[in-house]
Amino acid sequence: MKQIFEPRTVALIGASRDELSVGHGIIKNLIYGGVFKTQYNIPFKGKTYLVNPNAKSILGLKCYPSILNIKSRIDLAIIAVPASFVPSIVKDCIKKKVKGIIVISAGFSETGPKGRKLQEQILKDVTKANIPLIGPNCLGIINTKHINASFAPSTPPQGHIGFITQSGALADSIIDWAIEKNYGFSKIISVGNSASKDVSDFISYLAKDKDTKSITIYLEALNNGKKFMQAVKKCKKPIVILKGGKTDFGKEAITTHTGTLAGSYKVYNAAFKQLGITIVEDIESLFLYAKLLSEFKKIKNNIAIITNGGGCGVVTADLCSAEGINLAKLSPSTLQKLDASGKMHPAYSRSNPLDIIGDALSIRYKTALDCVLSQKNISAAIVIQTLQTMTDPVENAKVIVKLKKKYPKKPIIALFMGGKFTKAGKHYLEIYNIPVFEFPNKAVKALKALIK
Amino acid sequence: MKQIFEPRTVALIGASRDELSVGHGIIKNLIYGGVFKTQYNIPFKGKTYLVNPNAKSILGLKCYPSILNIKSRIDLAIIAVPASFVPSIVKDCIKKKVKGIIVISAGFSETGPKGRKLQEQILKDVTKANIPLIGPNCLGIINTKHINASFAPSTPPQGHIGFITQSGALADSIIDWAIEKNYGFSKIISVGNSASKDVSDFISYLAKDKDTKSITIYLEALNNGKKFMQAVKKCKKPIVILKGGKTDFGKEAITTHTGTLAGSYKVYNAAFKQLGITIVEDIESLFLYAKLLSEFKKIKNNIAIITNGGGCGVVTADLCSAEGINLAKLSPSTLQKLDASGKMHPAYSRSNPLDIIGDALSIRYKTALDCVLSQKNISAAIVIQTLQTMTDPVENAKVIVKLKKKYPKKPIIALFMGGKFTKAGKHYLEIYNIPVFEFPNKAVKALKALIK
Repeated sequence: MKQIFEPRTVALIGASRDELSVGHGIIKNLIYGGVFKTQYNIPFKGKTYLVNPNAKSILGLKCYPSILNIKSRIDLAIIAVPASFVPSIVKDCIKKKVKGIIVISAGFSETGPKGRKLQEQILKDVTKANIPLIGPNCLGIINTKHINASFAPSTPPQGHIGFITQSGALADSIIDWAIEKNYGFSKIISVGNSASKDVSDFISYLAKDKDTKSITIYLEALNNGKKFMQAVKKCKKPIVILKGGKTDFGKEAITTHTGTLAGSYKVYNAAFKQLGITIVEDIESLFLYAKLLSEFKKIKNNIAIITNGGGCGVVTADLCSAEGINLAKLSPSTLQKLDASGKMHPAYSRSNPLDIIGDALSIRYKTALDCVLSQKNISAAIVIQTLQTMTDPVENAKVIVKLKKKYPKKPIIALFMGGKFTKAGKHYLEIYNIPVFEFPNKAVKALKALIK
Repeated sequence: MKQIFEPRTVALIGASRDELSVGHGIIKNLIYGGVFKTQYNIPFKGKTYLVNPNAKSILGLKCYPSILNIKSRIDLAIIAVPASFVPSIVKDCIKKKVKGIIVISAGFSETGPKGRKLQEQILKDVTKANIPLIGPNCLGIINTKHINASFAPSTPPQGHIGFITQSGALADSIIDWAIEKNYGFSKIISVGNSASKDVSDFISYLAKDKDTKSITIYLEALNNGKKFMQAVKKCKKPIVILKGGKTDFGKEAITTHTGTLAGSYKVYNAAFKQLGITIVEDIESLFLYAKLLSEFKKIKNNIAIITNGGGCGVVTADLCSAEGINLAKLSPSTLQKLDASGKMHPAYSRSNPLDIIGDALSIRYKTALDCVLSQKNISAAIVIQTLQTMTDPVENAKVIVKLKKKYPKKPIIALFMGGKFTKAGKHYLEIYNIPVFEFPNKAVKALKALIK
């Protein structure tokens, strides 16, 4: 797979002048790292060759009539021509001895018997030639450190989450979201119809990839359950999965989406659990959990809540209880430290949730969080900030970032409730990779994912 | 209560020069409508008198040594002095024949027997004088059209949600959030210790208030269940409630928060259900549901999903199914209309979720949404947008706003997945009061709240 994810030379067959086309988007992603500009886009570090028999050059790059006219060796061929032309292009690629192929084009097994035949044809050829192929009917792949070989709008920040998806559109939206929220990815892989390489192959690949610390998967259907189980068993990294097509409505939707059958969710679910995979029900959790699991080992079920708003502490405590999260008792020595600090309000709660009262400035947050995290049996904290007139969201965020450094093994989840006057603090936390939420429910669920 | 929510003259006893104090924040809220500037802040429309025996004037307003020195009639007295002084100040207010009192000061029943005694004292006096009192130990109240009589950081947008809360800090954060998300409020009432007027009284008040279309309540404990039931039974407006202290951790947190006992949630829950109250588990849902319920009547369980991303359609369909939401079958005439429009992609799904394919421009969204909502038995739609390079989030948002006007009784929930390049579209939807979400889970739950 190395030639697909770290190629030195790439040929794009189906390079297009039409700015709205897929074949144009891929050129931009190769040259600039994105169709839309962001600070995370990186140009492909190798050399790009365009193939288009009807153009001399596009965006300053020379066009070749066929891949066979390119003199240089080609590591990766990306194909984005109408489906009916793909089999002969694949033959050309094999003749050219490319090291890997991505077929972006749609119009294969997802469209019916005729498309299935085309797909079988290319599969037969690449199998015989022993060339790895991604797709067809996919968005492509992104290696955030090396290449954006896709028609996604842009590249996400670099980081440690690997994402394998049976929906390319999902990847597009997640990239946009990740840019805003500073979620870092190592590789994004849109598997499409998985004619040759499938989800299991990419799990095996990411299991060995040094930039990937956790693996997220959006899965609709598996062709080979045994292969999947073997790949997961060998993988020592945390895997988080969202399975589409759990219910009748979802299964029906999959039939029209990819033409595959979703199978029984019960069977999938049982297998996932047995394999130690973290199962989620919604999209955001997929990446949130992966981010947390890539950073922290699983922790003991003994957490603390610090809050400057009593009611929000109550609601968060209720949600913890409902999720089976245990609120540790504050030890006499912790209370002593808090009392001795001279920073607490006379009416502070002296219990967990630790209510540090509405007039808390950041020094009180610092003292409280430090005292609580220094209590040995407390393994994590939720820090709640409601917006009072004296509240300083950015200073509070800085306190959290500093204490994260002091207690690197104890996750801190921030719950900064508010909007206009709170967002600068939230943004600061996002930049420093502290999970931050607006409402208790998600903060509690995030912490839940980390508990043994 | 009119004199509290629509006073013509207000006296603030405990006006302070100290910029970080509660007694200073209230002055700013009266004069400017907020401590922090926003476009929603409105100055109090009546006349403000400050009482502070140690100052000549604050922020340009003359200070009086006592309320008894003010010659004008006083409708509302706001008290923000240390608890031990409150009983004598209340006596002055009664002597002055004020029409209503808000006691902001803390240090009463929430602190123990001594505070309880002080509270009983003021309660006895105001009851005898038949003067309504809010508090003590509260944030105050906001009538978004008339007065900000609180120490909240600012005023939320005007609108139709009434909010009664046993946590003042919660109100502060929600105001900040509402400014960002354009959630409109009629009245915000922080009840504090509810010595005299309690949650039930405010339900009765909001039930008759012409600006309030739905009522939200954050409740920790009720002193008088029968009174509450009577108030709710008489109220014809939708009520949404979040009960703090459902679980052991939550109950314990309440004891330190307000000193009250939370009682059995089972009993509360059964009563709420019987009374037709919408019960929520998290804070955001409180206002989201209230906003939806203030705008729409409950709808039939027959909805449609429109999406430009197959996988997101699958996940959303799964979540609908799990919540018992029915996806209606697209009728032959709807499909005929879609086909005849000439705007659909050849591979569009022809089923519900209606997958209009990743290259959908806004004209295709418009055609699809219009056709689907014109099908009589479809009562609402979730519109999903994933971010492809050709996607235009603002144009899609405009389509949704226009079709909301065409089908005013059919709720449209927007699910715009993304971040940086999507937010302008989301912001447009927020301005036009279309509920918009980033991930499927919340969109589905929002729709669920509206289904009969």
